[in-house]
Amino acid sequence: MGRVPGAGSPPRVVAFGGGHGLAAALAAWRRITEQLTAVVTVADDGGSSGRIRREMPVLPPGDLRMAMAALAGDEARAQTLAALFQHRFGGSGVLAGHPVGNLLLTGLAEMHGGDTVRALDELCELIGARGRVLPMADEPLDLVARVETVDRDDPARVRTIRGQVAIAATPGRVRDIRVSPADPVVHPAVLEAIAQADVVSLGPGSWYTSVLPHLLVPRLRAALAESEARVVVVLNLEPQPGETDGFSPEEHLNVLLAHMDGVALHSVIADAESVVDRRGLLNAVRRCGAELLLAPVAEPDGAPRHDPERLSAALASVVGAR
Amino acid sequence: MGRVPGAGSPPRVVAFGGGHGLAAALAAWRRITEQLTAVVTVADDGGSSGRIRREMPVLPPGDLRMAMAALAGDEARAQTLAALFQHRFGGSGVLAGHPVGNLLLTGLAEMHGGDTVRALDELCELIGARGRVLPMADEPLDLVARVETVDRDDPARVRTIRGQVAIAATPGRVRDIRVSPADPVVHPAVLEAIAQADVVSLGPGSWYTSVLPHLLVPRLRAALAESEARVVVVLNLEPQPGETDGFSPEEHLNVLLAHMDGVALHSVIADAESVVDRRGLLNAVRRCGAELLLAPVAEPDGAPRHDPERLSAALASVVGAR
Repeated sequence: MGRVPGAGSPPRVVAFGGGHGLAAALAAWRRITEQLTAVVTVADDGGSSGRIRREMPVLPPGDLRMAMAALAGDEARAQTLAALFQHRFGGSGVLAGHPVGNLLLTGLAEMHGGDTVRALDELCELIGARGRVLPMADEPLDLVARVETVDRDDPARVRTIRGQVAIAATPGRVRDIRVSPADPVVHPAVLEAIAQADVVSLGPGSWYTSVLPHLLVPRLRAALAESEARVVVVLNLEPQPGETDGFSPEEHLNVLLAHMDGVALHSVIADAESVVDRRGLLNAVRRCGAELLLAPVAEPDGAPRHDPERLSAALASVVGAR
Repeated sequence: MGRVPGAGSPPRVVAFGGGHGLAAALAAWRRITEQLTAVVTVADDGGSSGRIRREMPVLPPGDLRMAMAALAGDEARAQTLAALFQHRFGGSGVLAGHPVGNLLLTGLAEMHGGDTVRALDELCELIGARGRVLPMADEPLDLVARVETVDRDDPARVRTIRGQVAIAATPGRVRDIRVSPADPVVHPAVLEAIAQADVVSLGPGSWYTSVLPHLLVPRLRAALAESEARVVVVLNLEPQPGETDGFSPEEHLNVLLAHMDGVALHSVIADAESVVDRRGLLNAVRRCGAELLLAPVAEPDGAPRHDPERLSAALASVVGAR
């Protein structure tokens, strides 16, 4: 069943993910605990992060920055800094579109001789973060996917596509995915956080590029398999074009399960409204020995986003926190 | 004689300047008072500042950043942030050479709708600055100089050169210099600081591009002429190639005096070792009714830089502070 935190003490939580999905999970978790560690994808090669990666041998900062901003303290100064982290340069020059926080994190890591974890800790302290932000690997990663092409004239039914942007831009379903290099170094702080965690959450988020990559890193998966943490999966509200076209929640889950390889899954949270085939999902969850929580976790206004308050309530009920 | 601060209370000081020279003045002044306002040139069009100016309609951030770093608090976090402000990106891409602080200030000002003063105040608070940093004008300026060319084949004896970088790169003496636009807007906070100042210091620094420009801004010069502050000039230790080739301290002073136009000068500080013709300098100082302080203010190791401790002692003796 996974470890259960001592009564009354907030759970030690590790949240795997990237992008807006991880930010949503962190916004929910921070209402439950401050013993919170985000373990963030470093495989982005698009946008500002991609431009920075092509210039300098650094971890792509974008997902790390978003996680920091999601954990920023409530004080006015912390919120101003979080807004600055997220602010994108205007104009029409080489800076245009870079979020300030991406440059800040990159510059500080560079100043510390490439020690991104030190830079993250210092910036987290600066914005009074309610938790810690760590990269899922100590080196920048590339995703490599085999994608079923939808071009009828293409004699190859399956194409190997390299890079997160290219994968997302290629029409057709991802058949399988791996990271390159295949066995990247993982920071000891990440392994320690997983070993001590009461709960590890996966998702929501871009399934193949933000959620699955963690399970593709052997040292991360091994740490998770050895951990006594309760493993909680938060399913997406809707399929994502280019990655999971037409995927049902059940199919999302099956993709994940195919990569768990020794990692136990304890709880699955799905939005009650978003699930069409409840029986199918329930069966899939039961087959892997987990429990299903169907709850209203989407924004009340119908937007396809998780509502922090609602998701927080669902997570609290799953991990037995009040 | 200029206003003298009340006995026992630290003087209210406004330091005019830019670049390394202003940083040296601030490093000295901060040992005397925390009622310190740096009023910084915004005419730089070279390096990182120039690249940013060409991209976005903002004040060139470089001199402002250096002034902030010079005022940063002594606490470990403030010093780390000051080092980050000054850290220049490596690599070989479009970010290479930009100090992180230039991007931070530019991004924050942009986020505040172009309000650079608000951004400066917030960043100064962040780094625990021992004073305030303000731009000398609310719009980016260009310097326009008439330079005596040294090219014997050039039929024109004098060329008009536009831009700080071009002026510094043009061999020959600057004959005169002006700012463009000719009458830029000055922030009320600058005018207020000058009106309330006990002391206003000019220099050291690049004479034509960091020290003189303040006197070329009509509203700044008018505020200084109306002020009761004691006006102190700190002369450079040596001439600067391309700007003041072969200038003696006396000639530096004469250039400044030619632009004072109603501004009283009360004290001149010169390094005792750097002055060859003491009598000539003394006569020039006396002609404008000021007093001369010849003191050892250079680094003891002979480097052509002002020593903060020594300059501070000289400034304290001139303004009557302990």
